[in-house]
Amino acid sequence: MDYTIRAANVEDCQDIARMVMELAEHDKVSDLVKITQEDLEQDGFSKKPFFHGIIAEVPEQHRTKEGHTKIGYALYFYSYTTWKGRAVYMVDLYVMPEFRGRGIGKALMSKIAQLGLAAGCTQLNFIALEQNKSSLDFYFRQGCSDITADIGYHYMSCNGEALEHLAQP
Amino acid sequence: MDYTIRAANVEDCQDIARMVMELAEHDKVSDLVKITQEDLEQDGFSKKPFFHGIIAEVPEQHRTKEGHTKIGYALYFYSYTTWKGRAVYMVDLYVMPEFRGRGIGKALMSKIAQLGLAAGCTQLNFIALEQNKSSLDFYFRQGCSDITADIGYHYMSCNGEALEHLAQP
Repeated sequence: MDYTIRAANVEDCQDIARMVMELAEHDKVSDLVKITQEDLEQDGFSKKPFFHGIIAEVPEQHRTKEGHTKIGYALYFYSYTTWKGRAVYMVDLYVMPEFRGRGIGKALMSKIAQLGLAAGCTQLNFIALEQNKSSLDFYFRQGCSDITADIGYHYMSCNGEALEHLAQP
Repeated sequence: MDYTIRAANVEDCQDIARMVMELAEHDKVSDLVKITQEDLEQDGFSKKPFFHGIIAEVPEQHRTKEGHTKIGYALYFYSYTTWKGRAVYMVDLYVMPEFRGRGIGKALMSKIAQLGLAAGCTQLNFIALEQNKSSLDFYFRQGCSDITADIGYHYMSCNGEALEHLAQP
């Protein structure tokens, strides 16, 4: 099946918001998702974007029964580690279930690797849910390492009242 | 003891590089550190910086016996999650051992929280080594959550030949 991988633009935010929620439902974390289409439009497509995106799109004749042609996405931003320097960080990687098994997820991730290498990055980093064995297997097949398992790094977060409190001098 | 927290500039990269290595030695990952002072200068202080930094500095009269007055640092960049949107990501947080226990680490992290909130971020994210119990205790005291332990997210990385291979269409 034909598909295209291209840079996301502001008109894609409705579909990205839809797929963000589909991915969260798949990962059983949908109650954690607070962002909306409007947030994505503002945060990704203003003068100083917090992320960039790529979209996987199929031709009209392969649209879903709901009429969707944008059937996968990945978000990313440039980041840094003091081990290896420049890094590209992949936020999400998602392909709608009926379009899986055709290399579209691999193509999305490959595009981020290309963009990262072109920007001088030596690593592509991301977080993945350990319960999601098929995703982990996919990442391992691409040669990824599990830094949490191998070295013991845990992903930590401070938010809400704790963040407000921390910010007080 | 007096100290100042201020934005890092390119002249700080020699001291940041020194402290990056001290931190890596403390965490027993110094063989993973590939970046140099020159990398930091280029990656953090060019037109499109990959990170920002803050420095903790003490007055001359409190300099170390080696003559250092820059005695702590943290690096950060702006990032994104599709759960909660805008995030600030802390790369490292380090205070030289002889200056610990005086709130300088807390002040550095607090500064990043302030900068993040001012930019509309709702979360401060980072990775921490699970073996480093005193650091983890410090982070828990600041109200941080261990997302790896709580939800099962693992930090993953693709680099070297695997990244080159992934980028091939």
